[in-house]
Amino acid sequence: MPKISKRAEHMPASPIRKLVPFSITAKQKGIKVYHLNIGQPDIETPERALNALKDIHTKVLEYSLSEGNLEYRQELAKYYNQVGYTDITPRNFIVTNGGSEALNFAISVLCDEGDEIIIPEPYYANYNGFSSALGVHVQAVHSTIETGFALPDIEEFEKKITDKTKAILICNPGNPTGYLYSKEELQKLANIAIKHDIVIISDEVYREYVYDDEKQTSILSFPELADNCIVIDSESKRYSMCGARIGFFVTRSEKLLHAAMLFAQARLSPPLLAQIVATEAHKDDEAYITAVRNEYTKRRNLLVELLNEIPGVICPKPKGAFYCIAELPVDDTEKFAQWLLESYHNQNETVMVAPAGGFYSDPELGKKQVRMAYVLKEEDLRRAVEILKDALTQYAQQ
Amino acid sequence: MPKISKRAEHMPASPIRKLVPFSITAKQKGIKVYHLNIGQPDIETPERALNALKDIHTKVLEYSLSEGNLEYRQELAKYYNQVGYTDITPRNFIVTNGGSEALNFAISVLCDEGDEIIIPEPYYANYNGFSSALGVHVQAVHSTIETGFALPDIEEFEKKITDKTKAILICNPGNPTGYLYSKEELQKLANIAIKHDIVIISDEVYREYVYDDEKQTSILSFPELADNCIVIDSESKRYSMCGARIGFFVTRSEKLLHAAMLFAQARLSPPLLAQIVATEAHKDDEAYITAVRNEYTKRRNLLVELLNEIPGVICPKPKGAFYCIAELPVDDTEKFAQWLLESYHNQNETVMVAPAGGFYSDPELGKKQVRMAYVLKEEDLRRAVEILKDALTQYAQQ
Repeated sequence: MPKISKRAEHMPASPIRKLVPFSITAKQKGIKVYHLNIGQPDIETPERALNALKDIHTKVLEYSLSEGNLEYRQELAKYYNQVGYTDITPRNFIVTNGGSEALNFAISVLCDEGDEIIIPEPYYANYNGFSSALGVHVQAVHSTIETGFALPDIEEFEKKITDKTKAILICNPGNPTGYLYSKEELQKLANIAIKHDIVIISDEVYREYVYDDEKQTSILSFPELADNCIVIDSESKRYSMCGARIGFFVTRSEKLLHAAMLFAQARLSPPLLAQIVATEAHKDDEAYITAVRNEYTKRRNLLVELLNEIPGVICPKPKGAFYCIAELPVDDTEKFAQWLLESYHNQNETVMVAPAGGFYSDPELGKKQVRMAYVLKEEDLRRAVEILKDALTQYAQQ
Repeated sequence: MPKISKRAEHMPASPIRKLVPFSITAKQKGIKVYHLNIGQPDIETPERALNALKDIHTKVLEYSLSEGNLEYRQELAKYYNQVGYTDITPRNFIVTNGGSEALNFAISVLCDEGDEIIIPEPYYANYNGFSSALGVHVQAVHSTIETGFALPDIEEFEKKITDKTKAILICNPGNPTGYLYSKEELQKLANIAIKHDIVIISDEVYREYVYDDEKQTSILSFPELADNCIVIDSESKRYSMCGARIGFFVTRSEKLLHAAMLFAQARLSPPLLAQIVATEAHKDDEAYITAVRNEYTKRRNLLVELLNEIPGVICPKPKGAFYCIAELPVDDTEKFAQWLLESYHNQNETVMVAPAGGFYSDPELGKKQVRMAYVLKEEDLRRAVEILKDALTQYAQQ
């Protein structure tokens, strides 16, 4: 039997996937599971975008351009211009199979095997997966629940920079933390990127979903980073079209664009149908985005308030995205999450949460934390927290 | 300005892309270009598949399963069962972003940086691109136009096998050669794969398009390869839906499936809309496939006959896919292809061909050859060859 590669051996399994068999078994026993564990919103995709599917009159689903079709990139440029980056044109985009492929291109363009990327932790677990697949090492800089996961001291980043360091990767607003970096924090990152001539890769897929009248600052706000930044973006969360698989790679750097295009050409083209849907979604989308933002605001307020009412639970109020990290009064959230699915129910209902260990370089650091996504309706969130509270009491009495 | 990675520096640019600026300039001068250079068929996508888009009633374009939605994999299993591989079930498939991603998974699962894959040349240029992106070296085994690109002596493969060799990659029927491997040839490959415990990766995306009552033999026909083979498949060419980006990775090996799933999970899911379209396409598709096969047969017969009538042109008759490799009476087909676009026209019309250098490990080997795709209507093929004949005469007189 042939051996698999070391890169496959070292691919981290998703922290959530381990729990899936237990959730399936729970459902087979007739238990309803409230899914706080995944970022799959129940929000509807814009009707206008879905209707575009009914208007497709092409007879042949042809390859699109490797960089994405011009009509779509024109909409993207218009959108970036409106957000405030008026120099961005269709030429600055490469359309990808979701944000995942944009990140893959970014790492591929910058890093060889053995190179390093610095990421503030806790971080989106797949950042580690994509890096591993390409033989690239993640160097984590620790942020804490006490600060609400604010940017760690910039000296901590400096300490990690070696001649192998090619980039700092941030998610803003953040998955899994919900933290929104301030302009001042980003300026500090921009300064060390310039000082060491490395690249800031900024994953901004949750840009629209920031709350309390805050506004997200893109890494594109720093003109001095023109050659030193890449934005990872996606329509998945913006328009609740995670399954369409459509994202994009954005940079002002001709050199990085040219290099990324070689990878884009090798895989021929991004999905055509998703481009058609996303092009429509961008048109006249203000009311949609506002309504969704208001909905997430209500859900966040409810979830965070209810969680903090549970004795022993600490949950900083996230400023963006639709996740929060909560510390629970248990020794090991992986065991607790499994117990919730395997050994507990409250009137035949339970909750599924994502143990936070997988979001840290050392799982011990997240051993008391879970990530929860507020992608459920308010009444469901209310019931989910009620169940969680009861479960924590019962778990303590075991 | 930050440096790009060595893997980006070494990414081979597509041999066709270099000519694109010249074809754009030609068109701007009002010259009509017959595209024999690319595998984008003019064949219509099945109507039934396109109609499926009008029937989508879901309100949220949700993530599909990382391995692809069950309904689609059930159709795929049914299709493989009909082709004759009756033990294949939905569990043997991982649905991907086109055949490209399936190949990426196969290489990732088997090879680390510095490992080697053996490929008979001429080969699809992107095989080199995907390998390069992952730091994997292609070892070419030379096949010749004189044999119609039959499998080289198996000793030539044996000579290339080292402890770094993880797989032999074939395309059957072949792009760019149109060659169809016989059961006997495949048996020889199976034998050395078992002997050295390496994997045969068989790209079978053109399976349906073989001519003269021949039948394609899948690498799945060899039960002894259960742990040692991976099929790369795609709907792009089968149903003329190149832009949908839907393919799949097929294996009987639990170990390879499990490893590939880790990469599939990291990128979350394949495109949902393309799965819906492809699921419909598979239903009741016999008349469609037969009609398309007949159309390609006519086109192949016409193109190859006309080409061989041109003095100095040699073109073996391909048995499958929709490409042929022709040797032309010129010193350098890259220069000739550029001249066709830049300095020649026949009543304001010209042709674009793919110089074959890019399909060889050493471009010198393909210097007198071009690849042509018979993806145009018969009347257009006829006119294209007429132009090519005139151009060759004029080029010789320069």
